[in-house]
Amino acid sequence: MDIADLGLPVDVPSTALFTDQYELTMLRAALKAGTAGRRSVFEVFTRRLPDGRRYGVVAGTGRVLDAVENFRFDADVLRFLRERDIVDEETLDWLAQYRFSGDIWGYPEGEVYFPGSPIMRVEGTFGECVLLETVILSILNHDSAIAAAASRMASAAGDRPLIEMGARRTHELAAVAAARSAYVGGFATTSDLAAGFRYNIPTVGTSAHAFTLLHDNERDAFRAQVDALGRDTTLLVDTYDVGEAVRTAVEIAGPELGAVRIDSGDLLLVAHRVRQQLDELGATETKIVVTSDLDEYAIASLAAAPVDAYGVGTQLVTGSGHPTASMVYKLVARAECGDSTGSTGSAASTGGEVPLVPVAKKSSGGKTSVGGRKWAARRLDAHGYAEAEVVGTGPVPAGLADRQLLVELVKGGEVVAREPLDAARDRHAAARANLPLSATQLSRGEPVIPTEYAHEGSGS
Amino acid sequence: MDIADLGLPVDVPSTALFTDQYELTMLRAALKAGTAGRRSVFEVFTRRLPDGRRYGVVAGTGRVLDAVENFRFDADVLRFLRERDIVDEETLDWLAQYRFSGDIWGYPEGEVYFPGSPIMRVEGTFGECVLLETVILSILNHDSAIAAAASRMASAAGDRPLIEMGARRTHELAAVAAARSAYVGGFATTSDLAAGFRYNIPTVGTSAHAFTLLHDNERDAFRAQVDALGRDTTLLVDTYDVGEAVRTAVEIAGPELGAVRIDSGDLLLVAHRVRQQLDELGATETKIVVTSDLDEYAIASLAAAPVDAYGVGTQLVTGSGHPTASMVYKLVARAECGDSTGSTGSAASTGGEVPLVPVAKKSSGGKTSVGGRKWAARRLDAHGYAEAEVVGTGPVPAGLADRQLLVELVKGGEVVAREPLDAARDRHAAARANLPLSATQLSRGEPVIPTEYAHEGSGS
Repeated sequence: MDIADLGLPVDVPSTALFTDQYELTMLRAALKAGTAGRRSVFEVFTRRLPDGRRYGVVAGTGRVLDAVENFRFDADVLRFLRERDIVDEETLDWLAQYRFSGDIWGYPEGEVYFPGSPIMRVEGTFGECVLLETVILSILNHDSAIAAAASRMASAAGDRPLIEMGARRTHELAAVAAARSAYVGGFATTSDLAAGFRYNIPTVGTSAHAFTLLHDNERDAFRAQVDALGRDTTLLVDTYDVGEAVRTAVEIAGPELGAVRIDSGDLLLVAHRVRQQLDELGATETKIVVTSDLDEYAIASLAAAPVDAYGVGTQLVTGSGHPTASMVYKLVARAECGDSTGSTGSAASTGGEVPLVPVAKKSSGGKTSVGGRKWAARRLDAHGYAEAEVVGTGPVPAGLADRQLLVELVKGGEVVAREPLDAARDRHAAARANLPLSATQLSRGEPVIPTEYAHEGSGS
Repeated sequence: MDIADLGLPVDVPSTALFTDQYELTMLRAALKAGTAGRRSVFEVFTRRLPDGRRYGVVAGTGRVLDAVENFRFDADVLRFLRERDIVDEETLDWLAQYRFSGDIWGYPEGEVYFPGSPIMRVEGTFGECVLLETVILSILNHDSAIAAAASRMASAAGDRPLIEMGARRTHELAAVAAARSAYVGGFATTSDLAAGFRYNIPTVGTSAHAFTLLHDNERDAFRAQVDALGRDTTLLVDTYDVGEAVRTAVEIAGPELGAVRIDSGDLLLVAHRVRQQLDELGATETKIVVTSDLDEYAIASLAAAPVDAYGVGTQLVTGSGHPTASMVYKLVARAECGDSTGSTGSAASTGGEVPLVPVAKKSSGGKTSVGGRKWAARRLDAHGYAEAEVVGTGPVPAGLADRQLLVELVKGGEVVAREPLDAARDRHAAARANLPLSATQLSRGEPVIPTEYAHEGSGS
């Protein structure tokens, strides 16, 4: 067994409680009314990108597949629901049998998205689909927010590697997902051992100020570190005086010293000074790693500085100002006159025999949605760059058929689209490279390509 | 067994991988250098509050105690560390024996804090303490950020109950911790079933727009819901036309209708209209619940509106603009000349026989810290309100001895301060009420009381 398959130190036997109570009460009411078995189509989309962002990044898809697969109600959970009187006995029986048996299509992980992109489509009975709302949104909203920030940082960093080191700034398990999303967005490594363990992401890390302070002086600390970790380690040089620390570091490790890390001060200025000093000491191959509240703007501002790698924490795991994507999960179509038995559970066939009607919230207040089961395709310009996100209902126009974005993820309840994390990472790099050049401008702007709606009968 | 003790659907057999790699490499180097056994004091504090905030709220303490208790390296984890060559065999042997055997003191959960407050103090050998950095910070930084936002919202809401419903906007397990923190900060209930299951927080929830859209018309949907959940349910009235929905709702449920929920539009305006309509229909006891991207400012702006409860999602789980507290975990003191064996593991005595020296980073760059093991006390004014956060090293001045803030949490590795979540919630309400009145002003300001430093020999 591959070590990455062992699962986290946190084992998740069931994801069924990552659910808002109203999903169960809706199920209960629908079962009683005989409408729970109505064939339904839910879609995940966002009405807008975070203010000023030019593209979004789909992340968490692989985690959604795990969550759907593990979504079961065991005896403890059923007992809890009974004791709290959240559902009735009929619903408990239904939940005890629950296993998602429908279909899920979606943008593959790492793909970019825009306002209105149908990022994920969940189809089955109302009952089996409505229950997945919260866990799907939790995963996609969190992971996509982090991946979007990571992507901007990666594009600002260019060829220089980025180290994810934000675990201490977010929930301990959100941190693991954040490291995963950062990797999809273009980060090279993480400091988070749980992320290395669970997702096989390369991990790095050498020492903190505490290690220097533990010892009687900086020299003792550096010697201890080099003795244990070798000359190619990274020594932290800003505990006392940077200039002195760099001198001591090269004295102890020699010019083979792997790297020095600078974690405070004016990084631009200090990096230049340290580079010059290292070169004068003959340590021309010793690298400079900078860390200290970096975000994509700070990274970009260091583009001309002699920096070899960036470590990013807080701003990465908090989505650089946008800690959540604003994705929603909406019923967009349902059977015209449903199979009104419903109570036989989710195993009921969801075959296409019943016509679907598009549905959407109509009330005023700016939260209206576009009804109907949608396809999406990215139209290219003459040079092969993305020109528009085309979203429609009904048949896909011939010219867009081979540019469709949704892929099959779950078929009849079975996950059919597992892939290694590197596939998502590579896909993201390719998708971003295919956007117009202004996509990676850091300044605030509009979505870099428009979303066009091609409704049934309107052509494309 | 109480159902809340069963643990989440997510079981956490070990928290040891919620660790940045450098903690293990520091341990490895310190073991080799013979310094891992040096008695050390680490403190958690923050250099500043989030911009404009007037107080912070300690949350997550109970989760930290769980994490420390479960911090063990099992065979799978040790194998991972060996395969990755992160530590050597000597360190692996040490880790296999690891169990925190030191002492932890801290501000009790729910207490308020200010810049420089020693929120938690971890004392033992360097090796056993340094490993806990990341998991302690992850928990406190996340949970305290959420609790601070919750506290502001609770104070803006006054006597009206707040419902936490942000699970879909954050990582699925961060959501559970967020619901817990929200409860500490003053929220009444949560929509998150996992939080109800794990922490016994009251859960609520009835229906979403999807339920209305599933049915052939709003009337069918309302009837289905009332049939299943009773007349005292909450009907969502903004799927189509609010006025029509309210009329239908009262027609179907009668004046015993529990509540209506409004999730879009100008809530101030709509709430007034709906209240008038409900009253005219005789449903004078039917409550109005509002939800829709609320934050503390929106809640405050509805103070004069006929609103009975608020549901808060995104802004709560993202800390209302400040998704993380900026707490750090710093070595502040260590043995002058340590027990240099170190390798006998964490069970070694940490008795006070070796004098401690204060240590602190000295480099320029604004990240300096105050060295030394600290006490903290809140000085009161003549009216009994908080006047200053006094933080010091050395003996506690007599006048402050009974106002000390740190309590013993872990003694010789044993957790000694477990408490029900309601204790933290009550403590927070009391602590906030004890602050000067301007504490709960929503406008941006300075910390509502100053932090004063009383260094050894300087008196208070």
